Amino acid sequence: MRIHIIGTGLLGASLGLALSAQKYQVSLEDTSPTAQQLAADLGAGTIFADGGNDCNGGSGSEGGNGGDPQIVVIATPPDVAAQTIATALETYPDATVTDVASVKTSLLESVRELVGRSELDRYIGCHPMAGREKSGAIAARSDLFTARPWVICSDENTPHNRLGEVVTMAEATGASVIHLDPRIHDAAVAKVSHVPQVVASLVASQLRHAPLEEVALAGQGLRDVTRIAASDPRLWTQILAGNSEEVRSVLLDLRTELDEVITALEMGPGATGALAKAIALGNEGYDRIPGKHGQAPTKYAVVTILIPDTPGTLATLFKDIGDLNINVEDFRMDHAPDQKLGIVDVSVVPATQQELETGLLSKGWQIPESAIEKEGIA
Amino acid sequence: MRIHIIGTGLLGASLGLALSAQKYQVSLEDTSPTAQQLAADLGAGTIFADGGNDCNGGSGSEGGNGGDPQIVVIATPPDVAAQTIATALETYPDATVTDVASVKTSLLESVRELVGRSELDRYIGCHPMAGREKSGAIAARSDLFTARPWVICSDENTPHNRLGEVVTMAEATGASVIHLDPRIHDAAVAKVSHVPQVVASLVASQLRHAPLEEVALAGQGLRDVTRIAASDPRLWTQILAGNSEEVRSVLLDLRTELDEVITALEMGPGATGALAKAIALGNEGYDRIPGKHGQAPTKYAVVTILIPDTPGTLATLFKDIGDLNINVEDFRMDHAPDQKLGIVDVSVVPATQQELETGLLSKGWQIPESAIEKEGIA
Repeated sequence: MRIHIIGTGLLGASLGLALSAQKYQVSLEDTSPTAQQLAADLGAGTIFADGGNDCNGGSGSEGGNGGDPQIVVIATPPDVAAQTIATALETYPDATVTDVASVKTSLLESVRELVGRSELDRYIGCHPMAGREKSGAIAARSDLFTARPWVICSDENTPHNRLGEVVTMAEATGASVIHLDPRIHDAAVAKVSHVPQVVASLVASQLRHAPLEEVALAGQGLRDVTRIAASDPRLWTQILAGNSEEVRSVLLDLRTELDEVITALEMGPGATGALAKAIALGNEGYDRIPGKHGQAPTKYAVVTILIPDTPGTLATLFKDIGDLNINVEDFRMDHAPDQKLGIVDVSVVPATQQELETGLLSKGWQIPESAIEKEGIA
Repeated sequence: MRIHIIGTGLLGASLGLALSAQKYQVSLEDTSPTAQQLAADLGAGTIFADGGNDCNGGSGSEGGNGGDPQIVVIATPPDVAAQTIATALETYPDATVTDVASVKTSLLESVRELVGRSELDRYIGCHPMAGREKSGAIAARSDLFTARPWVICSDENTPHNRLGEVVTMAEATGASVIHLDPRIHDAAVAKVSHVPQVVASLVASQLRHAPLEEVALAGQGLRDVTRIAASDPRLWTQILAGNSEEVRSVLLDLRTELDEVITALEMGPGATGALAKAIALGNEGYDRIPGKHGQAPTKYAVVTILIPDTPGTLATLFKDIGDLNINVEDFRMDHAPDQKLGIVDVSVVPATQQELETGLLSKGWQIPESAIEKEGIA
């Protein structure tokens, strides 16, 4: 299959790498000649020569005849995506046109204003839910989409053969395809991605002027909550602006609950019911987050092991676990504030907990004497 | 040293286990005879017989003479801690009295109202920053305090010998002692613990009514932000109520910034500067969180490896890393939505990145072809 990618940043170049590895014929186009050349040099595809005759100089020309691409993928920044999609629909009158933007409803509206009904049927919006802290082709990797959700937004007017082509391409990258209505997609990412990003940034922001002696008390809880606060402001500004209605709606609900907490804190002892309610509602929402592989949340048994923070110790630990033939479902490492000690939480299915503890103790590992199950972090 | 522990829940029983393991003479007391017996049965100490003559039946009576304890540790729920501390100061006129409550200023005020000046000098407030999702003696473990910060609040009136005793006891549990003013402690935990808890709960709460197809898009970012949303409402209600002023103050600052984001989202394209600012301020605060072992944040190189989710694979991976004699600074595992594949991010010091990648590739592991450093998650 011939694929033409417009925009060779992180996503475009990564897609080129992934599809080239699957023997797709990939051509690349970017308004920046430097970015275009870099992506090609990395192996993401061949540079697009005007008119579509950019014949792949690779392993012969079997199959491909140098004609128009079957799929054109728009991977530009979100603010120019709509115009680029419209132009591509016009330039390639037989091709299916898709994109990788992380907000779908407003983009579809913009495209609808720019093109006719029949052209619109050739556009299928996508959102591969993959990314990195780094941007640009230099950060591209062929496995970026592997095992990540790839959302496809089609409707009843979408021709089945075109939808099939896009599904095939998405699955060729190793992604897991999910079909969603654009509005449901946007509402979902507001809750599971955009609002968590805003709030993580706000929590981290409160540490800006905290003295060192205060931030020294930071534990794993704070680190988890603020990890994504390290994200790129430019990228997130475009994402939040593009999904402003959905994000605002969720933030307003959140603010209402925040205000109840603030009021309860002001009122003192009599109002603790509102505090308990806020934490309990959080429990309820937490329980809805799916576990591994899209399954329902699983309760794992967690075995905690203390290890010296020296080379090879972790290797020995996991070798010992491997020798017991027990599968590790999840793991987490925490560090001592000023000691050379690590605390490793290993999650396993409850049936194997006792065997794991007995086995590790017999090999001299330091683990708690009482084997207590706690909620697994899936 | 003789230690008397009042309150045998998770913290009291864990402290008893830790100190007993270090050959301290520990006696236990709880208003619940069942809880008291359970802690004793688990090995946390001997049950307190009235009058202090609860002679330890263990390894002889060398040193100890069955008299009053040197330190009394109050480990009751926060709402009865002040009265219990005051009673203990009266009951044991020579002992140093300490506690483990997670809020210090309001507790000190309450104790001050209940006891005289000279008695107050025998009280030294503490906050060992350790806990679990589970509560009660049944969840106790001797390593609960290992490698965790143990905050001690003393002032210029605190006798040096008493302070020294408390430090010695804290360090005997494996904890790292930090000396802080109570107000600074409370301001710190508001920012690094209490506010992150509130906000994680609020984010999770927004998922309560999200359809399954929406929560199916949940990724590692959401899981990180909401992990502590699984915490116990009863415990957190007491903690938040006890530190209401500091928590409220930080939440008000956070709400001001939240309102700016909400306003910017409402205003549309012209107001994206406010969105960029919110994310950038988050970057700034994030950079203040210390890394491992209380050091400044370190930039690690992250190597990502794809592994099949089968028993032993992780063991083989860490064995192979161990064979290269490279120390793993941190690791993180992510899962595919519906595939049997795991993505492992291994953080190492940048100088060893190339060696690690070359070594793992030569053993057949699947890693990205381009070696790019990204910000380490310390």
